[in-house]
Amino acid sequence: MSTLTPTTLLVAPDPTAPRLTRAVTGIDQTGAQVDLRVVEERPLTIYLNSREIVTAMTVGEHPEWLALGFLTNQGMVRGNDTVTGIDYDAELETVVVRTAVETDHEAKLARATRTSGCAVGTVFGDMMEGLEGLTLPATRLKVSDLQSLSQAINRTPSLYLEAGAIHGTCLCRGPDPLAYFEDVGRHNAVDTLAGWMRATGTGAEDKTLYTTGRLTSEMVIKCALMGIPCLVSRSGFTAWGVEIARQVGLTVIGRMKGNRFLCLSGAERVEWDG
Amino acid sequence: MSTLTPTTLLVAPDPTAPRLTRAVTGIDQTGAQVDLRVVEERPLTIYLNSREIVTAMTVGEHPEWLALGFLTNQGMVRGNDTVTGIDYDAELETVVVRTAVETDHEAKLARATRTSGCAVGTVFGDMMEGLEGLTLPATRLKVSDLQSLSQAINRTPSLYLEAGAIHGTCLCRGPDPLAYFEDVGRHNAVDTLAGWMRATGTGAEDKTLYTTGRLTSEMVIKCALMGIPCLVSRSGFTAWGVEIARQVGLTVIGRMKGNRFLCLSGAERVEWDG
Repeated sequence: MSTLTPTTLLVAPDPTAPRLTRAVTGIDQTGAQVDLRVVEERPLTIYLNSREIVTAMTVGEHPEWLALGFLTNQGMVRGNDTVTGIDYDAELETVVVRTAVETDHEAKLARATRTSGCAVGTVFGDMMEGLEGLTLPATRLKVSDLQSLSQAINRTPSLYLEAGAIHGTCLCRGPDPLAYFEDVGRHNAVDTLAGWMRATGTGAEDKTLYTTGRLTSEMVIKCALMGIPCLVSRSGFTAWGVEIARQVGLTVIGRMKGNRFLCLSGAERVEWDG
Repeated sequence: MSTLTPTTLLVAPDPTAPRLTRAVTGIDQTGAQVDLRVVEERPLTIYLNSREIVTAMTVGEHPEWLALGFLTNQGMVRGNDTVTGIDYDAELETVVVRTAVETDHEAKLARATRTSGCAVGTVFGDMMEGLEGLTLPATRLKVSDLQSLSQAINRTPSLYLEAGAIHGTCLCRGPDPLAYFEDVGRHNAVDTLAGWMRATGTGAEDKTLYTTGRLTSEMVIKCALMGIPCLVSRSGFTAWGVEIARQVGLTVIGRMKGNRFLCLSGAERVEWDG
Protein backbone atom coordinates (compact mmCIF):
# COMPACT_ATOMS: atom_id res chain seq x y z
CA MET A 1 0.00 0.00 0.00
CA SER A 2 1.42 3.38 -0.93
CA THR A 3 1.11 6.05 1.73
CA LEU A 4 0.23 9.68 1.24
CA THR A 5 -0.53 12.48 3.70
CA PRO A 6 -3.84 14.14 2.72
CA THR A 7 -3.35 17.81 1.84
CA THR A 8 -6.29 18.73 4.09
CA LEU A 9 -4.46 17.56 7.25
CA LEU A 10 -3.46 20.50 9.45
CA VAL A 11 -1.77 18.17 11.93
CA ALA A 12 -0.42 14.80 10.81
CA PRO A 13 1.49 12.02 12.58
CA ASP A 14 5.27 12.21 12.30
CA PRO A 15 6.44 8.60 12.14
CA THR A 16 10.02 9.70 11.46
CA ALA A 17 10.36 11.71 14.71
CA PRO A 18 13.18 9.95 16.61
CA ARG A 19 11.61 10.75 20.00
CA LEU A 20 8.48 8.69 19.31
CA THR A 21 9.94 5.28 18.52
CA ARG A 22 12.92 3.24 19.66
CA ALA A 23 15.00 0.73 17.71
CA VAL A 24 15.07 -2.70 19.34
CA THR A 25 16.37 -6.09 18.30
CA GLY A 26 14.39 -9.28 18.70
CA ILE A 27 14.34 -12.88 17.55
CA ASP A 28 11.63 -14.35 15.34
CA GLN A 29 10.06 -17.82 15.34
CA THR A 30 12.94 -19.24 13.27
CA GLY A 31 15.60 -17.93 15.66
CA ALA A 32 16.63 -15.16 13.25
CA GLN A 33 17.55 -11.70 14.53
CA VAL A 34 15.05 -8.97 13.60
CA ASP A 35 15.51 -5.21 13.93
CA LEU A 36 12.34 -3.20 14.42
CA ARG A 37 11.00 0.04 15.85
CA VAL A 38 8.56 0.13 18.76
CA VAL A 39 6.60 3.11 20.06
CA GLU A 40 7.78 5.02 23.10
CA GLU A 41 5.60 5.15 26.19
CA ARG A 42 6.49 7.65 28.88
CA PRO A 43 4.84 9.11 31.95
CA LEU A 44 3.44 12.64 31.86
CA THR A 45 2.16 14.16 35.08
CA ILE A 46 -0.57 16.73 34.51
CA TYR A 47 -1.03 19.59 36.95
CA LEU A 48 -3.93 22.00 37.10
CA ASN A 49 -2.46 25.13 38.67
CA SER A 50 -0.64 23.91 41.79
CA ARG A 51 -2.50 20.62 42.02
CA GLU A 52 -1.24 17.27 40.66
CA ILE A 53 -4.14 15.64 38.81
CA VAL A 54 -2.95 12.48 37.09
CA THR A 55 0.00 10.70 35.52
CA ALA A 56 -0.73 9.59 31.98
CA MET A 57 1.30 7.10 29.96
CA THR A 58 1.76 8.70 26.56
CA VAL A 59 3.91 8.57 23.45
CA GLY A 60 4.67 12.19 24.34
CA GLU A 61 4.16 13.88 20.98
CA HIS A 62 1.84 16.72 22.08
CA PRO A 63 1.98 17.05 25.89
CA GLU A 64 0.42 20.53 26.00
CA TRP A 65 -2.64 19.58 23.92
CA LEU A 66 -2.98 16.30 25.79
CA ALA A 67 -3.05 18.09 29.16
CA LEU A 68 -5.44 20.80 28.00
CA GLY A 69 -7.75 18.28 26.33
CA PHE A 70 -7.70 15.88 29.28
CA LEU A 71 -8.65 18.59 31.75
CA THR A 72 -11.31 19.93 29.37
CA ASN A 73 -12.82 16.51 28.69
CA GLN A 74 -12.90 15.72 32.42
CA GLY A 75 -14.75 18.98 33.06
CA MET A 76 -11.93 20.25 35.28
CA VAL A 77 -11.32 23.18 32.95
CA ARG A 78 -14.66 24.49 31.68
CA GLY A 79 -15.31 26.20 28.38
CA ASN A 80 -15.53 29.61 30.04
CA ASP A 81 -12.35 29.20 32.14
CA THR A 82 -9.49 31.35 30.86
CA VAL A 83 -6.33 29.32 30.32
CA THR A 84 -3.41 31.63 31.06
CA GLY A 85 -0.59 29.24 30.25
CA ILE A 86 0.55 25.68 29.61
CA ASP A 87 4.09 24.83 30.69
CA TYR A 88 5.69 21.56 29.63
CA ASP A 89 8.92 20.39 31.26
CA ALA A 90 10.44 17.53 29.27
CA GLU A 91 13.01 16.71 31.94
CA LEU A 92 10.53 16.54 34.82
CA GLU A 93 7.92 14.92 32.55
CA THR A 94 5.30 17.35 33.79
CA VAL A 95 2.86 19.75 32.21
CA VAL A 96 1.11 22.51 34.14
CA VAL A 97 -2.13 24.05 32.87
CA ARG A 98 -2.82 27.42 34.48
CA THR A 99 -6.20 29.09 34.69
CA ALA A 100 -7.04 32.68 35.60
CA VAL A 101 -9.34 31.55 38.41
CA GLU A 102 -8.95 28.38 40.50
CA THR A 103 -11.43 25.76 39.30
CA ASP A 104 -13.78 23.51 41.26
CA HIS A 105 -12.07 20.32 40.14
CA GLU A 106 -11.50 19.01 43.67
CA ALA A 107 -14.92 17.39 43.73
CA LYS A 108 -14.01 15.48 40.58
CA LEU A 109 -11.09 13.86 42.33
CA ALA A 110 -13.34 12.23 44.87
CA ARG A 111 -14.13 9.29 42.68
CA ALA A 112 -12.24 7.38 40.04
CA THR A 113 -14.11 5.20 37.60
CA ARG A 114 -12.26 2.31 36.10
CA THR A 115 -13.30 2.15 32.49
CA SER A 116 -13.23 -0.38 29.72
CA GLY A 117 -11.74 1.89 27.12
CA CYS A 118 -8.84 0.64 25.13
CA ALA A 119 -6.26 2.69 26.96
CA VAL A 120 -6.30 5.38 29.44
CA GLY A 121 -9.03 4.69 31.85
CA THR A 122 -8.95 7.09 34.73
CA VAL A 123 -12.13 9.05 34.58
CA PHE A 124 -13.06 11.35 37.38
CA GLY A 125 -16.55 11.99 38.52
CA ASP A 126 -19.75 10.93 36.92
CA MET A 127 -19.15 10.03 33.30
CA MET A 128 -22.75 10.70 32.44
CA GLU A 129 -22.64 14.23 33.83
CA GLY A 130 -23.47 16.78 31.18
CA LEU A 131 -25.29 14.40 28.83
CA GLU A 132 -28.78 15.41 29.97
CA GLY A 133 -30.35 17.92 27.68
CA LEU A 134 -27.48 17.64 25.19
CA THR A 135 -28.55 18.20 21.58
CA LEU A 136 -26.11 17.34 18.81
CA PRO A 137 -26.35 19.12 15.44
CA ALA A 138 -28.06 17.45 12.48
CA THR A 139 -24.93 17.50 10.28
CA ARG A 140 -25.29 15.16 7.28
CA LEU A 141 -22.81 12.38 6.58
CA LYS A 142 -22.44 10.83 3.11
CA VAL A 143 -21.51 7.18 2.78
CA SER A 144 -19.14 8.10 -0.03
CA ASP A 145 -17.40 10.63 2.24
CA LEU A 146 -17.01 8.02 4.96
CA GLN A 147 -15.45 5.61 2.52
CA SER A 148 -13.04 8.30 1.25
CA LEU A 149 -12.11 9.21 4.82
CA SER A 150 -11.41 5.66 5.86
CA GLN A 151 -9.14 5.13 2.87
CA ALA A 152 -7.35 8.46 3.35
CA ILE A 153 -6.69 7.81 7.04
CA ASN A 154 -5.47 4.27 6.48
CA ARG A 155 -3.02 5.48 3.83
CA THR A 156 -1.61 8.37 5.89
CA PRO A 157 1.98 7.71 7.06
CA SER A 158 1.70 7.04 10.79
CA LEU A 159 3.37 5.54 13.81
CA TYR A 160 0.81 2.74 13.49
CA LEU A 161 2.12 1.79 10.07
CA GLU A 162 5.73 2.30 11.24
CA ALA A 163 5.68 0.56 14.62
CA GLY A 164 2.15 -0.64 15.51
CA ALA A 165 0.76 -0.83 19.06
CA ILE A 166 -0.68 2.67 18.94
CA HIS A 167 -4.15 4.16 18.61
CA GLY A 168 -5.17 6.91 16.25
CA THR A 169 -7.92 9.48 16.13
CA CYS A 170 -8.73 11.92 13.37
CA LEU A 171 -11.04 14.91 13.23
CA CYS A 172 -12.75 15.13 9.85
CA ARG A 173 -15.21 17.32 7.97
CA GLY A 174 -17.11 15.75 5.09
CA PRO A 175 -14.55 13.79 3.06
CA ASP A 176 -11.53 15.64 4.54
CA PRO A 177 -9.27 14.54 7.40
CA LEU A 178 -8.27 17.70 9.31
CA ALA A 179 -6.19 16.67 12.34
CA TYR A 180 -4.76 13.22 13.05
CA PHE A 181 -3.27 12.27 16.44
CA GLU A 182 -1.78 9.04 17.71
CA ASP A 183 -1.03 7.86 21.22
CA VAL A 184 -0.43 4.64 23.13
CA GLY A 185 -3.79 5.19 24.81
CA ARG A 186 -6.79 5.78 22.57
CA HIS A 187 -8.24 8.23 25.07
CA ASN A 188 -4.99 10.18 25.08
CA ALA A 189 -5.32 10.56 21.32
CA VAL A 190 -8.88 11.89 21.65
CA ASP A 191 -7.92 14.17 24.55
CA THR A 192 -5.03 15.56 22.50
CA LEU A 193 -7.47 16.28 19.70
CA ALA A 194 -9.78 18.04 22.17
CA GLY A 195 -6.86 20.15 23.37
CA TRP A 196 -5.98 21.06 19.79
CA MET A 197 -9.60 22.00 19.06
CA ARG A 198 -9.69 24.24 22.11
CA ALA A 199 -6.29 25.81 21.41
CA THR A 200 -7.19 26.54 17.78
CA GLY A 201 -10.84 27.45 18.36
CA THR A 202 -12.01 24.69 16.03
CA GLY A 203 -15.76 24.05 16.19
CA ALA A 204 -17.26 20.58 16.62
CA GLU A 205 -20.69 20.94 15.03
CA ASP A 206 -19.82 19.96 11.42
CA LYS A 207 -17.20 17.35 12.26
CA THR A 208 -16.77 13.58 12.39
CA LEU A 209 -14.50 11.90 14.93
CA TYR A 210 -12.67 8.85 13.59
CA THR A 211 -10.98 6.50 16.07
CA THR A 212 -9.19 3.20 15.75
CA GLY A 213 -10.48 2.17 19.18
CA ARG A 214 -13.62 0.38 20.24
CA LEU A 215 -16.91 2.20 20.68
CA THR A 216 -17.37 1.75 24.41
CA SER A 217 -19.58 3.84 26.67
CA GLU A 218 -16.63 6.02 27.61
CA MET A 219 -15.72 6.85 24.01
CA VAL A 220 -19.35 7.58 23.10
CA ILE A 221 -19.78 9.88 26.10
CA LYS A 222 -16.53 11.69 25.37
CA CYS A 223 -17.47 12.31 21.74
CA ALA A 224 -20.95 13.54 22.68
CA LEU A 225 -19.60 15.87 25.38
CA MET A 226 -17.13 17.27 22.84
CA GLY A 227 -20.19 18.16 20.74
CA ILE A 228 -19.12 16.12 17.71
CA PRO A 229 -22.26 14.57 16.11
CA CYS A 230 -20.63 11.58 14.35
CA LEU A 231 -18.29 8.92 15.72
CA VAL A 232 -16.66 6.39 13.39
CA SER A 233 -14.37 3.46 14.21
CA ARG A 234 -12.70 0.58 12.50
CA SER A 235 -13.38 -1.42 15.68
CA GLY A 236 -16.58 -2.77 17.19
CA PHE A 237 -19.22 -1.79 19.73
CA THR A 238 -20.31 -2.45 23.27
CA ALA A 239 -24.02 -2.61 24.09
CA TRP A 240 -23.85 0.28 26.52
CA GLY A 241 -21.94 2.41 24.01
CA VAL A 242 -24.74 1.85 21.49
CA GLU A 243 -27.44 2.51 24.09
CA ILE A 244 -25.96 5.83 25.19
CA ALA A 245 -25.36 6.92 21.59
CA ARG A 246 -29.04 6.28 20.80
CA GLN A 247 -30.13 8.19 23.91
CA VAL A 248 -28.10 11.27 23.07
CA GLY A 249 -28.64 11.09 19.30
CA LEU A 250 -25.01 10.52 18.37
CA THR A 251 -24.35 8.85 15.02
CA VAL A 252 -22.16 5.81 15.66
CA ILE A 253 -20.54 3.83 12.87
CA GLY A 254 -18.23 0.89 13.56
CA ARG A 255 -16.45 -2.01 11.92
CA MET A 256 -15.39 0.38 9.16
CA LYS A 257 -13.15 -1.68 6.90
CA GLY A 258 -12.56 -0.92 3.25
CA ASN A 259 -15.96 0.26 2.02
CA ARG A 260 -17.92 -1.69 4.62
CA PHE A 261 -19.34 -0.46 7.92
CA LEU A 262 -22.25 -0.77 10.34
CA CYS A 263 -24.28 2.16 11.64
CA LEU A 264 -25.87 1.35 15.02
CA SER A 265 -27.14 4.77 16.03
CA GLY A 266 -28.15 8.07 14.44
CA ALA A 267 -28.73 6.71 10.92
CA GLU A 268 -30.89 9.77 10.21
CA ARG A 269 -27.69 11.76 9.57
CA VAL A 270 -26.43 9.32 6.95
CA GLU A 271 -26.98 9.78 3.19
CA TRP A 272 -26.76 6.47 1.39
CA ASP A 273 -25.13 7.73 -1.80
CA GLY A 274 -22.55 4.91 -1.99
CA MET B 1 -12.55 -21.64 10.56
CA SER B 2 -14.02 -24.40 12.66
CA THR B 3 -14.06 -23.77 16.38
CA LEU B 4 -13.29 -26.22 19.15
CA THR B 5 -12.87 -25.82 22.89
CA PRO B 6 -9.58 -27.45 23.96
CA THR B 7 -10.14 -30.29 26.42
CA THR B 8 -7.44 -28.87 28.69
CA LEU B 9 -9.46 -25.71 29.40
CA LEU B 10 -10.76 -25.64 32.98
CA VAL B 11 -12.55 -22.33 32.34
CA ALA B 12 -13.66 -21.36 28.85
CA PRO B 13 -15.58 -18.40 27.43
CA ASP B 14 -19.33 -18.89 27.13
CA PRO B 15 -20.34 -16.99 23.97
CA THR B 16 -23.89 -18.34 24.21
CA ALA B 17 -24.58 -16.86 27.68
CA PRO B 18 -27.47 -14.42 27.11
CA ARG B 19 -26.20 -12.07 29.85
CA LEU B 20 -22.95 -11.30 28.04
CA THR B 21 -24.19 -10.04 24.68
CA ARG B 22 -27.15 -8.05 23.42
CA ALA B 23 -28.97 -8.27 20.08
CA VAL B 24 -29.02 -4.96 18.21
CA THR B 25 -30.09 -3.91 14.75
CA GLY B 26 -28.03 -1.65 12.54
CA ILE B 27 -27.72 -0.52 8.95
CA ASP B 28 -24.77 -1.36 6.71
CA GLN B 29 -23.06 0.72 4.00
CA THR B 30 -25.70 -0.28 1.43
CA GLY B 31 -28.61 0.80 3.65
CA ALA B 32 -29.56 -2.80 4.43
CA GLN B 33 -30.71 -3.80 7.90
CA VAL B 34 -28.28 -6.02 9.82
CA ASP B 35 -28.91 -7.94 13.03
CA LEU B 36 -25.90 -8.56 15.21
CA ARG B 37 -24.82 -9.21 18.78
CA VAL B 38 -22.63 -6.79 20.72
CA VAL B 39 -20.90 -7.37 24.05
CA GLU B 40 -22.40 -6.06 27.25
CA GLU B 41 -20.49 -3.51 29.33
CA ARG B 42 -21.73 -2.82 32.83
CA PRO B 43 -20.39 -1.10 35.91
CA LEU B 44 -19.14 -3.14 38.86
CA THR B 45 -18.18 -1.34 42.04
CA ILE B 46 -15.54 -3.16 44.04
CA TYR B 47 -15.40 -2.83 47.82
CA LEU B 48 -12.63 -3.97 50.09
CA ASN B 49 -14.35 -4.57 53.44
CA SER B 50 -16.37 -1.39 54.06
CA ARG B 51 -14.40 0.78 51.67
CA GLU B 52 -15.38 1.54 48.05
CA ILE B 53 -12.28 1.10 45.92
CA VAL B 54 -13.20 1.48 42.25
CA THR B 55 -15.94 1.11 39.66
CA ALA B 56 -14.86 -1.10 36.78
CA MET B 57 -16.61 -1.39 33.43
CA THR B 58 -16.86 -5.11 32.76
CA VAL B 59 -18.72 -7.65 30.69
CA GLY B 60 -19.73 -9.06 34.07
CA GLU B 61 -19.00 -12.75 33.58
CA HIS B 62 -16.91 -13.40 36.71
CA PRO B 63 -17.37 -10.50 39.15
CA GLU B 64 -15.97 -12.34 42.18
CA TRP B 65 -12.73 -13.37 40.49
CA LEU B 66 -12.39 -9.93 38.89
CA ALA B 67 -12.70 -8.21 42.28
CA LEU B 68 -10.32 -10.62 44.03
CA GLY B 69 -7.78 -10.42 41.21
CA PHE B 70 -7.98 -6.64 40.93
CA LEU B 71 -7.35 -6.16 44.65
CA THR B 72 -4.57 -8.75 44.59
CA ASN B 73 -2.85 -7.26 41.54
CA GLN B 74 -3.04 -3.78 43.04
CA GLY B 75 -1.39 -5.04 46.21
CA MET B 76 -4.44 -4.10 48.29
CA VAL B 77 -4.98 -7.70 49.30
CA ARG B 78 -1.62 -9.37 49.91
CA GLY B 79 -0.75 -13.03 49.46
CA ASN B 80 -0.83 -13.62 53.20
CA ASP B 81 -4.15 -11.81 53.82
CA THR B 82 -6.97 -14.22 54.60
CA VAL B 83 -9.99 -13.62 52.38
CA THR B 84 -13.06 -14.47 54.45
CA GLY B 85 -15.71 -13.88 51.80
CA ILE B 86 -16.63 -12.39 48.44
CA ASP B 87 -20.22 -11.16 48.09
CA TYR B 88 -21.58 -10.21 44.67
CA ASP B 89 -24.89 -8.36 44.39
CA ALA B 90 -26.10 -8.37 40.77
CA GLU B 91 -28.85 -5.85 41.42
CA LEU B 92 -26.61 -3.30 43.15
CA GLU B 93 -23.75 -4.09 40.74
CA THR B 94 -21.35 -4.38 43.66
CA VAL B 95 -18.88 -6.94 44.91
CA VAL B 96 -17.43 -6.89 48.41
CA VAL B 97 -14.17 -8.68 49.21
CA ARG B 98 -13.75 -9.28 52.93
CA THR B 99 -10.46 -9.93 54.68
CA ALA B 100 -9.85 -11.22 58.21
CA VAL B 101 -7.74 -8.19 59.09
CA GLU B 102 -8.18 -4.68 57.67
CA THR B 103 -5.50 -4.02 55.03
CA ASP B 104 -3.24 -1.00 54.53
CA HIS B 105 -4.73 -0.17 51.14
CA GLU B 106 -5.53 3.44 52.03
CA ALA B 107 -2.05 4.60 51.03
CA LYS B 108 -2.62 3.09 47.60
CA LEU B 109 -5.60 5.32 47.02
CA ALA B 110 -3.50 8.43 47.33
CA ARG B 111 -2.39 8.36 43.74
CA ALA B 112 -3.98 7.23 40.50
CA THR B 113 -1.83 6.57 37.48
CA ARG B 114 -3.42 6.95 34.11
CA THR B 115 -2.08 4.14 32.00
CA SER B 116 -1.79 3.34 28.34
CA GLY B 117 -3.19 -0.13 28.60
CA CYS B 118 -5.85 -1.19 26.21
CA ALA B 119 -8.69 -0.93 28.68
CA VAL B 120 -8.95 -0.51 32.32
CA GLY B 121 -6.36 1.93 33.38
CA THR B 122 -6.79 2.87 36.97
CA VAL B 123 -3.69 1.80 38.77
CA PHE B 124 -3.12 2.81 42.33
CA GLY B 125 0.26 3.52 43.76
CA ASP B 126 3.63 2.97 42.24
CA MET B 127 3.35 0.51 39.38
CA MET B 128 6.98 -0.44 39.74
CA GLU B 129 6.63 -1.34 43.41
CA GLY B 130 7.56 -4.92 44.06
CA LEU B 131 9.64 -5.41 40.91
CA GLU B 132 12.96 -4.92 42.68
CA GLY B 133 14.63 -8.17 43.56
CA LEU B 134 11.99 -10.16 41.65
CA THR B 135 13.32 -13.37 40.12
CA LEU B 136 11.17 -15.24 37.64
CA PRO B 137 11.59 -18.99 37.19
CA ALA B 138 13.61 -20.37 34.25
CA THR B 139 10.67 -22.32 32.78
CA ARG B 140 11.38 -23.40 29.19
CA LEU B 141 9.10 -22.49 26.31
CA LYS B 142 9.07 -24.42 23.03
CA VAL B 143 8.33 -22.62 19.76
CA SER B 144 6.14 -25.56 18.73
CA ASP B 145 4.12 -25.22 21.96
CA LEU B 146 3.63 -21.51 21.35
CA GLN B 147 2.37 -22.18 17.86
CA SER B 148 -0.04 -24.86 19.13
CA LEU B 149 -1.29 -22.53 21.84
CA SER B 150 -1.92 -19.66 19.48
CA GLN B 151 -3.90 -21.89 17.15
CA ALA B 152 -5.89 -23.49 19.99
CA ILE B 153 -6.81 -20.13 21.53
CA ASN B 154 -7.83 -18.59 18.21
CA ARG B 155 -10.09 -21.56 17.48
CA THR B 156 -11.80 -21.62 20.89
CA PRO B 157 -15.45 -20.44 20.73
CA SER B 158 -15.44 -16.99 22.32
CA LEU B 159 -17.28 -13.72 22.71
CA TYR B 160 -14.58 -12.27 20.48
CA LEU B 161 -15.56 -14.56 17.61
CA GLU B 162 -19.26 -14.04 18.40
CA ALA B 163 -19.42 -10.28 18.92
CA GLY B 164 -15.92 -8.73 18.76
CA ALA B 165 -14.84 -5.66 20.74
CA ILE B 166 -13.54 -7.71 23.66
CA HIS B 167 -10.13 -8.70 24.97
CA GLY B 168 -9.02 -12.16 25.95
CA THR B 169 -6.39 -13.64 28.20
CA CYS B 170 -5.47 -17.25 28.67
CA LEU B 171 -3.28 -19.00 31.23
CA CYS B 172 -1.31 -21.80 29.60
CA ARG B 173 1.18 -24.52 30.52
CA GLY B 174 3.38 -25.88 27.74
CA PRO B 175 1.07 -26.52 24.77
CA ASP B 176 -2.11 -26.50 26.88
CA PRO B 177 -4.56 -23.62 27.43
CA LEU B 178 -5.85 -23.93 31.03
CA ALA B 179 -8.12 -20.95 31.75
CA TYR B 180 -9.44 -18.43 29.22
CA PHE B 181 -11.16 -15.18 30.26
CA GLU B 182 -12.62 -12.35 28.22
CA ASP B 183 -13.60 -8.84 29.23
CA VAL B 184 -14.22 -5.45 27.64
CA GLY B 185 -11.02 -4.27 29.32
CA ARG B 186 -7.88 -6.30 28.77
CA HIS B 187 -6.75 -5.62 32.34
CA ASN B 188 -10.07 -6.88 33.66
CA ALA B 189 -9.44 -10.14 31.84
CA VAL B 190 -5.98 -10.50 33.41
CA ASP B 191 -7.28 -9.50 36.84
CA THR B 192 -10.07 -12.08 36.56
CA LEU B 193 -7.43 -14.68 35.75
CA ALA B 194 -5.41 -13.57 38.80
CA GLY B 195 -8.51 -13.95 40.96
CA TRP B 196 -9.14 -17.43 39.57
CA MET B 197 -5.51 -18.42 40.22
CA ARG B 198 -5.76 -17.22 43.81
CA ALA B 199 -9.15 -18.85 44.39
CA THR B 200 -7.99 -22.19 42.98
CA GLY B 201 -4.43 -22.10 44.37
CA THR B 202 -2.96 -22.34 40.86
CA GLY B 203 0.80 -21.66 40.76
CA ALA B 204 2.39 -19.25 38.30
CA GLU B 205 5.91 -20.61 37.97
CA ASP B 206 5.40 -23.01 35.03
CA LYS B 207 2.81 -20.94 33.17
CA THR B 208 2.55 -18.68 30.13
CA LEU B 209 0.16 -15.73 30.01
CA TYR B 210 -1.44 -15.15 26.61
CA THR B 211 -3.21 -11.84 25.97
CA THR B 212 -4.83 -10.27 22.95
CA GLY B 213 -3.78 -6.81 24.18
CA ARG B 214 -0.66 -4.80 23.59
CA LEU B 215 2.49 -5.35 25.61
CA THR B 216 2.68 -2.02 27.41
CA SER B 217 4.60 -1.29 30.60
CA GLU B 218 1.50 -1.93 32.66
CA MET B 219 0.85 -5.37 31.20
CA VAL B 220 4.51 -6.38 31.57
CA ILE B 221 4.59 -5.24 35.21
CA LYS B 222 1.34 -7.03 36.00
CA CYS B 223 2.54 -10.31 34.50
CA ALA B 224 5.88 -10.10 36.33
CA LEU B 225 4.21 -9.30 39.66
CA MET B 226 1.90 -12.28 39.15
CA GLY B 227 5.08 -14.39 38.92
CA ILE B 228 4.35 -15.72 35.43
CA PRO B 229 7.65 -15.99 33.52
CA CYS B 230 6.32 -15.77 29.94
CA LEU B 231 3.98 -13.22 28.35
CA VAL B 232 2.65 -13.72 24.82
CA SER B 233 0.44 -11.46 22.71
CA ARG B 234 -0.96 -11.26 19.24
CA SER B 235 -0.45 -7.47 19.48
CA GLY B 236 2.68 -5.33 19.50
CA PHE B 237 5.05 -3.72 21.99
CA THR B 238 5.89 -0.41 23.57
CA ALA B 239 9.51 0.53 24.20
CA TRP B 240 9.01 0.81 27.95
CA GLY B 241 7.23 -2.54 28.09
CA VAL B 242 10.25 -4.14 26.43
CA GLU B 243 12.70 -2.31 28.67
CA ILE B 244 11.00 -3.38 31.89
CA ALA B 245 10.65 -6.97 30.67
CA ARG B 246 14.39 -7.09 30.00
CA GLN B 247 15.14 -5.61 33.43
CA VAL B 248 13.06 -8.18 35.29
CA GLY B 249 13.92 -11.13 33.03
CA LEU B 250 10.40 -11.71 31.73
CA THR B 251 10.08 -13.49 28.38
CA VAL B 252 7.98 -11.31 26.10
CA ILE B 253 6.67 -12.50 22.75
CA GLY B 254 4.45 -10.34 20.57
CA ARG B 255 2.93 -10.08 17.11
CA MET B 256 1.99 -13.76 17.38
CA LYS B 257 0.05 -14.51 14.20
CA GLY B 258 -0.26 -17.95 12.72
CA ASN B 259 3.17 -19.49 13.25
CA ARG B 260 4.98 -16.15 13.31
CA PHE B 261 6.07 -14.11 16.31
CA LEU B 262 8.79 -11.84 17.68
CA CYS B 263 10.57 -12.38 21.00
CA LEU B 264 11.92 -9.10 22.39
CA SER B 265 12.96 -10.19 25.87
CA GLY B 266 13.94 -13.35 27.73
CA ALA B 267 14.88 -15.39 24.65
CA GLU B 268 16.95 -17.66 26.91
CA ARG B 269 13.74 -19.47 27.92
CA VAL B 270 12.79 -20.25 24.32
CA GLU B 271 13.62 -23.56 22.59
CA TRP B 272 13.67 -23.12 18.83
CA ASP B 273 12.27 -26.55 17.89
CA GLY B 274 9.84 -25.16 15.29
